[in-house]
Amino acid sequence: MKSFSNVMVAGLGVLGAQIAYQVAYSGANVTGYDINTGALDDGRHRLEQLRKRYAHNPGTRDPGDAQLALDRIKLTSDLQEAASGAELVIEAVPENLDLKRTFYQKLAPLLSPTAVIATNTSTLLPSDLAASTGRPEKFLALHFANEVWIHNTAEVMGTPATDPTIYQQVVSFAHEIGMIPIEIKKEQAGYLLNSLLVPWLQAASSLFMRGVAEPEMIDLTWRTATGAPTGPFQVFDVIGIRTAYAVSVAGDQTQQEFAAYLKEHLLDQGKFGKESGEGFYHYPAQTQNSPSS
Amino acid sequence: MKSFSNVMVAGLGVLGAQIAYQVAYSGANVTGYDINTGALDDGRHRLEQLRKRYAHNPGTRDPGDAQLALDRIKLTSDLQEAASGAELVIEAVPENLDLKRTFYQKLAPLLSPTAVIATNTSTLLPSDLAASTGRPEKFLALHFANEVWIHNTAEVMGTPATDPTIYQQVVSFAHEIGMIPIEIKKEQAGYLLNSLLVPWLQAASSLFMRGVAEPEMIDLTWRTATGAPTGPFQVFDVIGIRTAYAVSVAGDQTQQEFAAYLKEHLLDQGKFGKESGEGFYHYPAQTQNSPSS
Repeated sequence: MKSFSNVMVAGLGVLGAQIAYQVAYSGANVTGYDINTGALDDGRHRLEQLRKRYAHNPGTRDPGDAQLALDRIKLTSDLQEAASGAELVIEAVPENLDLKRTFYQKLAPLLSPTAVIATNTSTLLPSDLAASTGRPEKFLALHFANEVWIHNTAEVMGTPATDPTIYQQVVSFAHEIGMIPIEIKKEQAGYLLNSLLVPWLQAASSLFMRGVAEPEMIDLTWRTATGAPTGPFQVFDVIGIRTAYAVSVAGDQTQQEFAAYLKEHLLDQGKFGKESGEGFYHYPAQTQNSPSS
Repeated sequence: MKSFSNVMVAGLGVLGAQIAYQVAYSGANVTGYDINTGALDDGRHRLEQLRKRYAHNPGTRDPGDAQLALDRIKLTSDLQEAASGAELVIEAVPENLDLKRTFYQKLAPLLSPTAVIATNTSTLLPSDLAASTGRPEKFLALHFANEVWIHNTAEVMGTPATDPTIYQQVVSFAHEIGMIPIEIKKEQAGYLLNSLLVPWLQAASSLFMRGVAEPEMIDLTWRTATGAPTGPFQVFDVIGIRTAYAVSVAGDQTQQEFAAYLKEHLLDQGKFGKESGEGFYHYPAQTQNSPSS
């Protein structure tokens, strides 16, 4: 590791755990922080699941690497301990403006003045958070996509206050940890990916809600005409129906009708998308990990 | 061929010629109609190019089939002769409401009362044309995509007046000629494909115009995150820059800025997209057909 050797990952939820594991897997020392013992236990469980997944991945260089990665991750709920020695903090705490600001205000005095902070926020702009970090020139967004080992984009987006040298250092870091850095030149809500995905998904759900065609037919059209592996309703299943609901319920009338459809026909039936085995489509049960592990 | 054995294709432009050839290739007799000798000569040239392309396609069952297909196409600029014996007319005349209506009014009295008419219109609704055909119950849209042998969707869209039996007959026909029929249940401007493509392409061009990211970065994001073979600017190159210009110049301010960009940086430089060898990207020269053919 050249850019940063000691990385703190704050928040060990689904994506936070993936980020922590991926960073450790590429050779850096990681301190995983979460707020209490319960949250840390959940994080530890997620990391263990990731170890199994990486170890069984045919692309893994050596199954032993997966355990070495786990060994490089230290977990703590003591913020001072977590901040000590961190050269880079990747923040993946819950998506709430006040919560993130409060977290940064507590974190900043405990960090080395040279430490860089990157937020993984999906929906906020880094400008909304920069002041609370106490180091706007060393703050930017580094946005990962779920299943970092497959959807391995890392969108890098600064604010007008971000030091260009720091920006490039984080781009290099993203590359070093096996991501494809996506360099965004100007702040944009939704980054690049969601800025493309949302209008496309809304167009698809609107066709469905207005009775123009069924999801299967809409997906078939997209796949056939563009050669893409998945159509929009397959993407909804990957994103997860809960997320699809949260986005569409905040939209226009047709999108709200779609949200109501999702609730009645999917969420209330326990169909949360691909991860749960069913969404718009049915997915065969995932292969179990070996029982002895 | 079960559904229709004698098919008239009206208009032998780029897509009309492809439709005529594809229908003949699947075994039906085709009469290709265009307005005068010059237009017929252009159509004949396009059909001959298609013969070469199909004959050299590794997927072709037998290179001889390509010549047999050509032999099944009769060309004429005599509308009465073209209409005689036609069980299905596929209309691919220029995209102009008055022109299409006038064409149908001339054609209708020459056709058998049982003949079905399908329009390949991209931008009009079949409802706008139904009355002029004199047989609204036997009229619907059958919309092909350029390069019918690759992007082989055939979107089938009726009006409220279309007989459901006729609709299903055309769905079967689309299947018989090697297309993937896309069944659309309600009239929709842009069918399914353009209804999905346009908002996605506009989102991409808007990110570029607002200085958020470069086309290459936007395409990379989409390909990486979704596994698709092409991002939006690669799709612009396939659609063609002239078409991209025509669509965006009619849009909002950002889209008009994009149109101006396309004109200055691509069209005025002779860069028309993939077909011309350059658009947003550069494409290596296509393989020439053998000089003796």
